[in-house]
Amino acid sequence: MALVSNSIITLTTDFGLDDPFVGIMKGVILSVNPVAKIVDITHGVPAHDILAGALMLRSGYAYFPPGTIHLAVVDPGVGSQRRPLLVVGEQYAFVGPDNGLFSPIIQSDTELKVFHLVEEKYFLKPVSKTFHGRDIFAPVAASLSCGTPPELFGPLVDDWIRLDWPSPRSTGRGRLRGTVLHVDRFGNLITNISLTDLPWATPVEISIGNRKIERVCESYAEAEDGELFAILGSAGLLEISIKQGSAARLLGVGSRHELEVRFR
Amino acid sequence: MALVSNSIITLTTDFGLDDPFVGIMKGVILSVNPVAKIVDITHGVPAHDILAGALMLRSGYAYFPPGTIHLAVVDPGVGSQRRPLLVVGEQYAFVGPDNGLFSPIIQSDTELKVFHLVEEKYFLKPVSKTFHGRDIFAPVAASLSCGTPPELFGPLVDDWIRLDWPSPRSTGRGRLRGTVLHVDRFGNLITNISLTDLPWATPVEISIGNRKIERVCESYAEAEDGELFAILGSAGLLEISIKQGSAARLLGVGSRHELEVRFR
Amino acid sequence: MALVSNSIITLTTDFGLDDPFVGIMKGVILSVNPVAKIVDITHGVPAHDILAGALMLRSGYAYFPPGTIHLAVVDPGVGSQRRPLLVVGEQYAFVGPDNGLFSPIIQSDTELKVFHLVEEKYFLKPVSKTFHGRDIFAPVAASLSCGTPPELFGPLVDDWIRLDWPSPRSTGRGRLRGTVLHVDRFGNLITNISLTDLPWATPVEISIGNRKIERVCESYAEAEDGELFAILGSAGLLEISIKQGSAARLLGVGSRHELEVRFR
Repeated sequence: MALVSNSIITLTTDFGLDDPFVGIMKGVILSVNPVAKIVDITHGVPAHDILAGALMLRSGYAYFPPGTIHLAVVDPGVGSQRRPLLVVGEQYAFVGPDNGLFSPIIQSDTELKVFHLVEEKYFLKPVSKTFHGRDIFAPVAASLSCGTPPELFGPLVDDWIRLDWPSPRSTGRGRLRGTVLHVDRFGNLITNISLTDLPWATPVEISIGNRKIERVCESYAEAEDGELFAILGSAGLLEISIKQGSAARLLGVGSRHELEVRFR
Repeated sequence: MALVSNSIITLTTDFGLDDPFVGIMKGVILSVNPVAKIVDITHGVPAHDILAGALMLRSGYAYFPPGTIHLAVVDPGVGSQRRPLLVVGEQYAFVGPDNGLFSPIIQSDTELKVFHLVEEKYFLKPVSKTFHGRDIFAPVAASLSCGTPPELFGPLVDDWIRLDWPSPRSTGRGRLRGTVLHVDRFGNLITNISLTDLPWATPVEISIGNRKIERVCESYAEAEDGELFAILGSAGLLEISIKQGSAARLLGVGSRHELEVRFR
Repeated sequence: MALVSNSIITLTTDFGLDDPFVGIMKGVILSVNPVAKIVDITHGVPAHDILAGALMLRSGYAYFPPGTIHLAVVDPGVGSQRRPLLVVGEQYAFVGPDNGLFSPIIQSDTELKVFHLVEEKYFLKPVSKTFHGRDIFAPVAASLSCGTPPELFGPLVDDWIRLDWPSPRSTGRGRLRGTVLHVDRFGNLITNISLTDLPWATPVEISIGNRKIERVCESYAEAEDGELFAILGSAGLLEISIKQGSAARLLGVGSRHELEVRFR
């Protein structure tokens, strides 16, 4: 639980890079901690899509050195009663809104403490009602990276928001119904079905968007050009892909779409 | 006026991130000053849109620590007689083309000096006629961050280009006509009307794109889904927004479009 | 040949910035070398377009300080027999797939050594078949930046893949046929015709997409608004441009399209 800071602060937001929002957050961080090392995980979370943000953060956070502070902002509730949080786990800390963004990570880390950020002296004032990334999360993450003890930012809470993360469900013997969580830049469909959901068999038939897929590949290179196939992707989740093409476009399928897997 | 460098150099351009232009500028900077800390404000300024670039730079520059050098390139006149400038203010320096990009900042800082960059020994040679970001602005910003005194780069000038920044104008008693300066990633319309333009009243009716807006919110969360509303945005400017949607798309309105505000 | 590392690692990929892939690679690098200075050249290489990636890397790599390690991943063959490589030249090192991505650079550097990356202790395990950027190239580049001698990563090879780089060809007296290599963010068409292909004359007529272009400008500013013209671009290659517009859109022309140049 004693988090040793390494001064790395990552950023994950839905702000995009076309506006100065991300640059402004970096300026605020460097004003508090001039030696912070700021790394973007992504700013391409679809706008207001907490589920996609949670997925991307979950895919990426553990590749950083212990002590890294992960700042994330996908925050449709900014300016409301939605609480700002600091989550301190065994290896990493997380700063951002209390809307479920961190819950897939929190749930898998038993040794953690969640603090409600209330101590205004660590904020940039006046605190706006529209940009807490700049006014609360960036300066708090920067102060934390300077060694400010977590308990100084506010009281412990345990009633943080759990995200309604879609889990695959059994729909009969040898059948599993899953959901597309995200479409990546290559048009690959990333589902919520992980390796541990399929411990006893290899999937043989996947139904999605009026198509049936029977091919399971270990690498993209293994497939034929234009062939539709399933693959265990780099995030440890089942993906539907097409070689040299976009599975999303071919199938007319996007985020939240369902698929069915039948085992042998 | 004695600018103490902190070795932070920010970049604001219309180069986008799909080409290697920005990476090349960073390589040039690091070749001159290997310990420079380079931070992107944004590279998503619409191509050749000096007004949008000036707005973004004005929104962001002051969040960085004193001593920061802001390099900006939105430069349709590259290769012409357009002069390259170094602007040194009390807290920040600016490097870029003399086309108005810095004028909203220059006009609000009384203690500043503007230098015409002519000393070629600080340039990357041969100087192209198409990429002064690489050949002039990056190496000058890097040399400045190494402690080169500003006056060594060239002579003082005072006839720099003033941007024709659109100001809101009164169109009758209790009426103000403003302009959309920029559409952000969420489709919010950022106008040129600031809090100081509305000191004595709350706007009650805003006309834009054949719609009338009466709702003024303090936060995005306050509005109903799909509702069109006005809000004082994070840059201190009046914005037209729609919750969970794009005001720009709904209204069919973009940059340079006018709006009218009527007060009670 | 004795590469002195400066701890700068650049990244060039076709991963885009909307997914966490690039951020993950940075986390892996910083886990191995916490003081590495990571700089993006671009992540906007069109998906699987090795030729465009090679062009962008070739345009950018030499602007970085000697000792820089260039990591590049455009890798349609990931997970196949395609070998992972480390290329060590006089001033720079390159890490990435053996698919031609580095061949324009390799061919112009006579003093270099190419190593086949086989030593698994430098990899992130288990090595996936879908994301060698994370599992092989990032940790190898980071270890190299820590001073690990190149020969420890694997054996020397000399049968690396040569890219089939399109060269302009003569099609008669005073005629040259070239190819568009890439369309940049402004819609400029970057061709494979360099200054050295035109040593003895100025081109007077360029035929492309049913249009003839006779105007050659030295700078964008020199042209009239809406005028189509040729220019020697910042990468040292002939470009077709239109002022305040997109030549690609006007001509209906994209990557791989051919053009013909006639000299006086």
